[in-house]
Amino acid sequence: MENNLNNIKSKNIYWHEGDISREDRQRQYGHKSACIWFTGLSGSGKSTIARKLEEKLFERGVKTYVLDGDNVRHGLNRNLGFSHEDRTENIRRIGEVAKLLVDAGLIVMTAFISPFREDRRNVRNLMKEGEFIEIFIDATIETCEERDPKGLYKKAKAGEIKEFTGISSPYEEPEKPELIVNTTEEADININAEKILKFLEENELLD
Amino acid sequence: MENNLNNIKSKNIYWHEGDISREDRQRQYGHKSACIWFTGLSGSGKSTIARKLEEKLFERGVKTYVLDGDNVRHGLNRNLGFSHEDRTENIRRIGEVAKLLVDAGLIVMTAFISPFREDRRNVRNLMKEGEFIEIFIDATIETCEERDPKGLYKKAKAGEIKEFTGISSPYEEPEKPELIVNTTEEADININAEKILKFLEENELLD
Repeated sequence: MENNLNNIKSKNIYWHEGDISREDRQRQYGHKSACIWFTGLSGSGKSTIARKLEEKLFERGVKTYVLDGDNVRHGLNRNLGFSHEDRTENIRRIGEVAKLLVDAGLIVMTAFISPFREDRRNVRNLMKEGEFIEIFIDATIETCEERDPKGLYKKAKAGEIKEFTGISSPYEEPEKPELIVNTTEEADININAEKILKFLEENELLD
Repeated sequence: MENNLNNIKSKNIYWHEGDISREDRQRQYGHKSACIWFTGLSGSGKSTIARKLEEKLFERGVKTYVLDGDNVRHGLNRNLGFSHEDRTENIRRIGEVAKLLVDAGLIVMTAFISPFREDRRNVRNLMKEGEFIEIFIDATIETCEERDPKGLYKKAKAGEIKEFTGISSPYEEPEKPELIVNTTEEADININAEKILKFLEENELLD
């Protein structure tokens, strides 16, 4: 059991009686909390970059968590399909969970295609100023089709998957994302994760 | 920024390349992660005890979070009503979010009436063995009516609230909760929170 109480006392920080606030947690954890929202086509590299970034943050003692299809679609959102209404509800719930994790003091990363501007804007509006960091993982559709790690583009082109983003359903690029990472131009995961880490440092999220 | 990397290295712990696991987090945070599920009548003291326990855990450097009506009903579950179906979905979503928070390495506490055994059992089944700690906050209906902090019993008795647990809707007591805290017999919040803290210590969750 690490004894953070001593750390806190040594910094002359005392929390008020009663509820532990987000600010109390941020002080104890030694970093700001925020939601890093990755958006981009399937195969653009969202999840891979998020996991690599998480590794780097974890090494620095930052409290983090990644929400992606693996832990959300089979759990919280397993009663949602892929209709427009359900996609919107999918993103809404992810946004609300991300908000809870931010309140818990974590730097939470979300890796979902989230193709619609309005859905992303609604999540941004849930958060406080500066807490929502939208990162556009930009890659050409050709790059994504070439990678096609799950064979989804192939199926979409064969008509086996309906309303597939980039093929038969639109992807609305962010108009003013906090950061753009182009994985067609630079495919190295480590370099891309470092770029984001630098952004977080420059924006004083890590101290 | 606290440097937990040094702490980890000094313990000869190295995480594998790739995804950060729940076990990696538990090692770094210095405690197990778990879901402490409070159940009991409205006014029994669930939320108050959860907040007091959170304060004590926070003082010890434990990473925690409390889910309750305040942060869930107006957010994630704001599109749910109080029909039986919606109540079940309410508890299901809370269970899934709790599971994510446990995966993130936290000791998460939930403070919801959660009156139905089946709903609570479903949440227990989401978690791994030993991760779900059901605590029955036991109080007589008379105690709860007397406290009635939100004036809900008064409204329920006047028929202004339909299907109110304990008045017009059943509360199914846990059959084998991990712990029972009786707040009719002992109303002191501090003593009750300490009792739970002792339970967590004895079950080696805090080291």
